[in-house]
Amino acid sequence: MVPLAASTVQDALVDLFVVLLAAKLGDELFKRLGLPTLIGEILAGVVVGTSVLDLVEPTEILAVFSELGAVFLLFWVGLETRIGDLRQVGRAAALVGMLGVLLPFAGGAGIGLSAGETTAVVVFTGAALVATSVGITSAVLSDLGLVPTPAGRTILGAAVVDDILAMLILGVAVGLSGDAGADYTSLALSAVLAVAFVAFFALGGTRVMQRAPGILKAPRFSESPLLPAVLLCLALAAIAAQIGLAAIIGAFLAGMMVAETKEQHPIEEEVAPLYAFFAPYFFVFIGLQLDLGAYGSLGTFGLLAATTAVAIVTKFAGAWLGARSLGSREATIVGVGMVPRGEVGIVIAGIGLAEGAVSEEFFAVIVGMSILTTLLAPPVLRAVSRPQAQS
Amino acid sequence: MVPLAASTVQDALVDLFVVLLAAKLGDELFKRLGLPTLIGEILAGVVVGTSVLDLVEPTEILAVFSELGAVFLLFWVGLETRIGDLRQVGRAAALVGMLGVLLPFAGGAGIGLSAGETTAVVVFTGAALVATSVGITSAVLSDLGLVPTPAGRTILGAAVVDDILAMLILGVAVGLSGDAGADYTSLALSAVLAVAFVAFFALGGTRVMQRAPGILKAPRFSESPLLPAVLLCLALAAIAAQIGLAAIIGAFLAGMMVAETKEQHPIEEEVAPLYAFFAPYFFVFIGLQLDLGAYGSLGTFGLLAATTAVAIVTKFAGAWLGARSLGSREATIVGVGMVPRGEVGIVIAGIGLAEGAVSEEFFAVIVGMSILTTLLAPPVLRAVSRPQAQS
Repeated sequence: MVPLAASTVQDALVDLFVVLLAAKLGDELFKRLGLPTLIGEILAGVVVGTSVLDLVEPTEILAVFSELGAVFLLFWVGLETRIGDLRQVGRAAALVGMLGVLLPFAGGAGIGLSAGETTAVVVFTGAALVATSVGITSAVLSDLGLVPTPAGRTILGAAVVDDILAMLILGVAVGLSGDAGADYTSLALSAVLAVAFVAFFALGGTRVMQRAPGILKAPRFSESPLLPAVLLCLALAAIAAQIGLAAIIGAFLAGMMVAETKEQHPIEEEVAPLYAFFAPYFFVFIGLQLDLGAYGSLGTFGLLAATTAVAIVTKFAGAWLGARSLGSREATIVGVGMVPRGEVGIVIAGIGLAEGAVSEEFFAVIVGMSILTTLLAPPVLRAVSRPQAQS
Repeated sequence: MVPLAASTVQDALVDLFVVLLAAKLGDELFKRLGLPTLIGEILAGVVVGTSVLDLVEPTEILAVFSELGAVFLLFWVGLETRIGDLRQVGRAAALVGMLGVLLPFAGGAGIGLSAGETTAVVVFTGAALVATSVGITSAVLSDLGLVPTPAGRTILGAAVVDDILAMLILGVAVGLSGDAGADYTSLALSAVLAVAFVAFFALGGTRVMQRAPGILKAPRFSESPLLPAVLLCLALAAIAAQIGLAAIIGAFLAGMMVAETKEQHPIEEEVAPLYAFFAPYFFVFIGLQLDLGAYGSLGTFGLLAATTAVAIVTKFAGAWLGARSLGSREATIVGVGMVPRGEVGIVIAGIGLAEGAVSEEFFAVIVGMSILTTLLAPPVLRAVSRPQAQS
């Protein structure tokens, strides 16, 4: 038997307190300024992180709390989403997902090509610009009450398509950067597995729940339906992560399944405190990963500006084109809503760095781009969606 | 910037799911058997742990979730505790705390002496038998509705005294096992700091809250009083851990402070899901730390039986003597309630092993004793407290 060091747990308690306090302060400040509170929380992460006060490092324990923040956030959004509503926007969502991946990939690969890089690096720079952080967008949609609108549902559906395609492109990029080259057979298998997982739980899972709406509070379960619901959420999140998707896709599917049961409302009430506790770690952790010192040189700063511009323009254009059938106003909301790269871009760049396919400089650029797109999108989304809120 | 391995977070999601599922299954099974559910959860930890199915290891991440389980548990118990009620049993609680530490220390040291060990080892074997796990006892008291009884309050008050004394004895033990010997000046400072911390928040903190009962929901805070309350809880837990006390003592003090505000009931409702989510990790983690293979030899098994017997008899006798003024029935409840050593005994034995003061065998014995006392106390506590529940 090996004892665990008590000091790890002690240090973790301090980190958990400092991050939650920073998030709360950032949130309150931005509320008073009339700005999106999640930006306040991300900037609070920058302030307590290594760049400024150096109080907290992005440890593995904080990474897990951050992931659970995103998981409970998407579970919560799933609880507000009926599968029938998603079906209505299915075509638009699929188009947004596909075009919103193709254009940024082309843009990112173009940056790599213009720098004269190898094929592996070119594919990675493309991959790094692809994935939307539906976590960030969901939080903003939820704040603005936009989840149950055509644009909101299109974004959620597109995010699932987006994540599957991003996984495949990342798989190709990792394969190309290794010695063995890309293994297209196993990539095809991954794709089939991912589509089967999503279809099975989105269609089959919700149907099971519709037929047995009392299943979470059957006499064989306990008084509260919370733990069965959280178990379903963690199970699908873990499976999604194991098959190469984002864990939050699984959490979203679990939320949609629970939305079909009789216990939807009590579970929403009980999940709210879990979301309130964990979500700040998700936002602050994004800021914690920024190291401002990495952008000191003019060259890096220029590359950051160019990459961010390409990331915004290509994603907006692709998503807007895909959502045109919803009308120009909704298409604009979808276009802006797909822009934030959030934690997903950071994770992909981290994989590229670990594989040796992207340089330290480009890693820093992708992290910066991910955070900039995440900071820029919420205020714009508020502005473009305002007219409807008043109608 | 250093990227974090995505696989750590993926593995953690699987661990978090498996532990929660195991806890739920253990809980449901023991509910059907009419046995205390927390025992079902601890045994579920043994089953999924290295001894049986080997599905989960006691990782640092699970240790943090376990600690938060105990923290939210004691915060919750603090929410049900008024400082005025604790004062009424102050004398008995102090006596229980002191006698309940002295007798087990003497018993443990006796075991060390009879084995002919050095002074450092003798002090450690004494220290390892001292500390009560108020986490376990609180969970049982809460299940049985005994928190607001004289016995329940005496146990909670005694646990604070117990923890301060245990910290000091552990400090002496660690000092003696090092080259420099025990530093009694810094130990005295620690004692003063610990007493000052408890007195400041138990007396001063609750008084501040009594005078400003709306402070957690003042207009300058947000809609929900949950995060301010959780921040207070984490802050006092982190401070308590930093000054050498158990984190849960700080959480308990924070709960007592919040109990004096107007927001006590909404906070209880919102903390309940946090407690429901985290507490299973606390119970399962205790079981996870058991390695049944360590008790294979007859000698170790005999030492485990003897140590457990001494741990039970000395703690019961000390606490019973201290609580005599409450009457024989209440004194019996207090005596049994103080017996579980839970995670505290495991932590102290781990420190002893790390310091080289206790052998691998004795570490395994203390872990076994901690778990056995934890498994034995709840059913006995239910049995001895039953008459009142029916009256």
